[in-house]
Amino acid sequence: MEMKYGLIAIPIVIAIFAVMITGNDQFLPELDSKVQKASQIVPPVAEAEEQKVREYTLVIEATDFDVSPTAVWHAWTFNGTIPAPTLRVQEGELLRVRVINNHNLTHSFHAHMGDYDPKHDGSPINTITGVGAGSMIPPGGEWTYEYNVNTSGTTFFHDHAASEGLGIKDHILQGLYGAIIVERDPPKTYIDRDIVIVMSEIGHDVERKSKGPVPFYLMNGMGVPGGEKALEDIFKEKGIDGVVEQFNKTIPVHYAKVGETVQFHVINLGEQIHSFHLHGNKMYSTTNNRGAVIASQTIPLVQGTLETFIITPDKPAMWLFHCHVVGHADAGMIGLFIVEE
Amino acid sequence: MEMKYGLIAIPIVIAIFAVMITGNDQFLPELDSKVQKASQIVPPVAEAEEQKVREYTLVIEATDFDVSPTAVWHAWTFNGTIPAPTLRVQEGELLRVRVINNHNLTHSFHAHMGDYDPKHDGSPINTITGVGAGSMIPPGGEWTYEYNVNTSGTTFFHDHAASEGLGIKDHILQGLYGAIIVERDPPKTYIDRDIVIVMSEIGHDVERKSKGPVPFYLMNGMGVPGGEKALEDIFKEKGIDGVVEQFNKTIPVHYAKVGETVQFHVINLGEQIHSFHLHGNKMYSTTNNRGAVIASQTIPLVQGTLETFIITPDKPAMWLFHCHVVGHADAGMIGLFIVEE
Amino acid sequence: MEMKYGLIAIPIVIAIFAVMITGNDQFLPELDSKVQKASQIVPPVAEAEEQKVREYTLVIEATDFDVSPTAVWHAWTFNGTIPAPTLRVQEGELLRVRVINNHNLTHSFHAHMGDYDPKHDGSPINTITGVGAGSMIPPGGEWTYEYNVNTSGTTFFHDHAASEGLGIKDHILQGLYGAIIVERDPPKTYIDRDIVIVMSEIGHDVERKSKGPVPFYLMNGMGVPGGEKALEDIFKEKGIDGVVEQFNKTIPVHYAKVGETVQFHVINLGEQIHSFHLHGNKMYSTTNNRGAVIASQTIPLVQGTLETFIITPDKPAMWLFHCHVVGHADAGMIGLFIVEE
Repeated sequence: MEMKYGLIAIPIVIAIFAVMITGNDQFLPELDSKVQKASQIVPPVAEAEEQKVREYTLVIEATDFDVSPTAVWHAWTFNGTIPAPTLRVQEGELLRVRVINNHNLTHSFHAHMGDYDPKHDGSPINTITGVGAGSMIPPGGEWTYEYNVNTSGTTFFHDHAASEGLGIKDHILQGLYGAIIVERDPPKTYIDRDIVIVMSEIGHDVERKSKGPVPFYLMNGMGVPGGEKALEDIFKEKGIDGVVEQFNKTIPVHYAKVGETVQFHVINLGEQIHSFHLHGNKMYSTTNNRGAVIASQTIPLVQGTLETFIITPDKPAMWLFHCHVVGHADAGMIGLFIVEE
Repeated sequence: MEMKYGLIAIPIVIAIFAVMITGNDQFLPELDSKVQKASQIVPPVAEAEEQKVREYTLVIEATDFDVSPTAVWHAWTFNGTIPAPTLRVQEGELLRVRVINNHNLTHSFHAHMGDYDPKHDGSPINTITGVGAGSMIPPGGEWTYEYNVNTSGTTFFHDHAASEGLGIKDHILQGLYGAIIVERDPPKTYIDRDIVIVMSEIGHDVERKSKGPVPFYLMNGMGVPGGEKALEDIFKEKGIDGVVEQFNKTIPVHYAKVGETVQFHVINLGEQIHSFHLHGNKMYSTTNNRGAVIASQTIPLVQGTLETFIITPDKPAMWLFHCHVVGHADAGMIGLFIVEE
Repeated sequence: MEMKYGLIAIPIVIAIFAVMITGNDQFLPELDSKVQKASQIVPPVAEAEEQKVREYTLVIEATDFDVSPTAVWHAWTFNGTIPAPTLRVQEGELLRVRVINNHNLTHSFHAHMGDYDPKHDGSPINTITGVGAGSMIPPGGEWTYEYNVNTSGTTFFHDHAASEGLGIKDHILQGLYGAIIVERDPPKTYIDRDIVIVMSEIGHDVERKSKGPVPFYLMNGMGVPGGEKALEDIFKEKGIDGVVEQFNKTIPVHYAKVGETVQFHVINLGEQIHSFHLHGNKMYSTTNNRGAVIASQTIPLVQGTLETFIITPDKPAMWLFHCHVVGHADAGMIGLFIVEE
């Protein structure tokens, strides 16, 4: 390796060295004027006619989930699932999302995007300024939001309305969130699977039908109180079939094949801090420190942040993933990643 | 782009590739010996005579803030504001801060700098070692702190004293903190505005004059209980004038013009975790991952950490910014960024 | 500097510029196909015969610590210390850890490594799948875990078992954790000292013999309730000798000599969020943003994550380090770094 890359390495090494002794800064006077220009190269919001348009329709509605044998969560969803269906779009496109509110409260769709007209913000500011007031959608109404998509990567959307006695946080926790994956143009071809995991906590409207544990910490709307210990107890009582019965009911389970390249998109849209640990697979960051191995195989997930990473599993296995606030895992925040031949 | 940068790209791509497969490490044996040398290139603390000296005077004093119509915060400040005035200094300079304690408790000034004589630490260790014991300033006293400034970037200072029944945390929460912006030499010329936002929580000495909500989570000493919902309610009752009345009283409001390059310096000096989301503007990190777009437009802000970022707003708008621990925003941790033609 | 690095800087600047305007992505189509290949270059688990084997033996046992004059922590340890002895290993080696369980509950050894046979996972999944069921070690049993070490850097291990009434979090908090330092091949030669600090909180089994404060937040198993204020009070009562009495009893104390290069490995294996601030020394990241100065001299430490950094102290001093969730420092999470001539 050293021979092969020796000559090429010299300028890189010197440059990185220079960056190091100067804290990334002193060395880069020309760069900074370019950052300035670069940051100004924001393409204008294009007319739909000039741009490829990617269109989605999402319906906000009440949806019940049996979160345990003893409790029903009267949740709110986009299109019946938690998280909402993932919206995929490509750099350079116009993303157009028609949102229909079939629920009995005002809701909105607020996307963490970097370039859109303020009328599509979907926040109380639209009500106050009168610009895009309809983006706070009353019961029975709808709004079509548009975003100029110019940065690849993963981001997310969520409700940004509050209502009598319920904060915006309560609206989000009730299930109104989802991921947006912005593909590069041309798209990456080497990723065989994308797995989206949204960490959060359960909403306020849970009906307990009888006594029994109810999950609080959730991944993709699921949780198994007692965590791995509970799974072990199920196994001891009912064998592997008892465990399999929980798959994608209380435990999110994802599959891949040996040799595939799998990209995880892990998002914290809860009110608590979380972190994410996957057992047994070297994780390469594809967002916050692109290309670097994730230290100690654990991703920090402060509220409202995300990370994406790729792995290439090389042996058949059933691997755990879980929140590494270990008490959250004990309380149910665990999942399985199954690698098959 | 590919044509233009093609040749240049090759060594970079190969180098980054090499870094990737080795986790930044195996590839860089020469680099490490240079890191060693680099990290040893710490300029000696220069004599004031040889260095340009930047001098500030800060006075610690009791200051009252009407944090709501029903409550007064008997806060403590440097020079009467929360946060303190921002100290600007340039790489290569000696920063000299004269601090006068006009309050009835011992206080200090502790700066998160990387090169200074231990006698300027401003911590209880000064009392214990006897080196710079006076940097823990008794009531009526003063101390002049000095720092050799050799790294550009943003950092902060805060009180580092405790007193009977009050921890260091209580001293800080009472309002004794501020930002230091270390400019590069030569300075960046492309930044039109700097906006400093310190996230924290209210101190212990709040006097409630009558019943009513009091902010707990603060940005720059302000908070509006009920968050955006409360603003909406004010708007419904009093119109836009009612909202404007709150500007820089309970809601921090910052302005910029279309096309300007604006740098935000966002700091968490509270006891709670926070995160920071600005609506509608692509955020480029200028600290933790210099030049990268901030993922999902949200900055994680673990206690005691910071991030800086630049944006170039391209359309007139009133944009929200808020803590993305959404319950904190609901409780008041919101602000407005107004872009004018 | 500009003259010297001028020519070399050009391609770097352009490349970084290109990365900047595209968010690290659009510019790198060739790179991505290489990431794909790179991430697939996972060396097969080698036979022990082909690889240098690094062997350790750890014994799990009950260990008592006098955490205060009035309380005993009936902790659990690997080899009698908290944290466990640091395991050092080199890239390319096979790490083999024989773990003997001399305690009266089932325990395991789970390492945050990226390449190992699922039978060495040391988690309840081993019990459920029957693959490596013995890696959940019953009282009196043992298991020998093996890892193919192919990424340098710092990581950690901890118990991953639960028991009746105790979650996995409780098992970890009782003291069953430690660091793994993976050296590069060839090893770095410029680091004179490694200092490992594990931040956590005290376990559940603390016996209070009489009334008095007991530490809750710990660094390396130690904490001094009252933090710096308490130290100051001890100093006022007993002088410096009283303070020195606390060294490595309630306060972790580390030493270095002027001019040495010291690497800190700071890990959060607790249930609370922490952050880490060292006074007076410029900190260069060696993990998460290799080579960059750590902003505001404070490391964010979300649960389950770590950072490593180097400093080169240049003057004799007694410097504080502490959690910058300042309330945790007030409650005891402080330590001393003493630089000697």
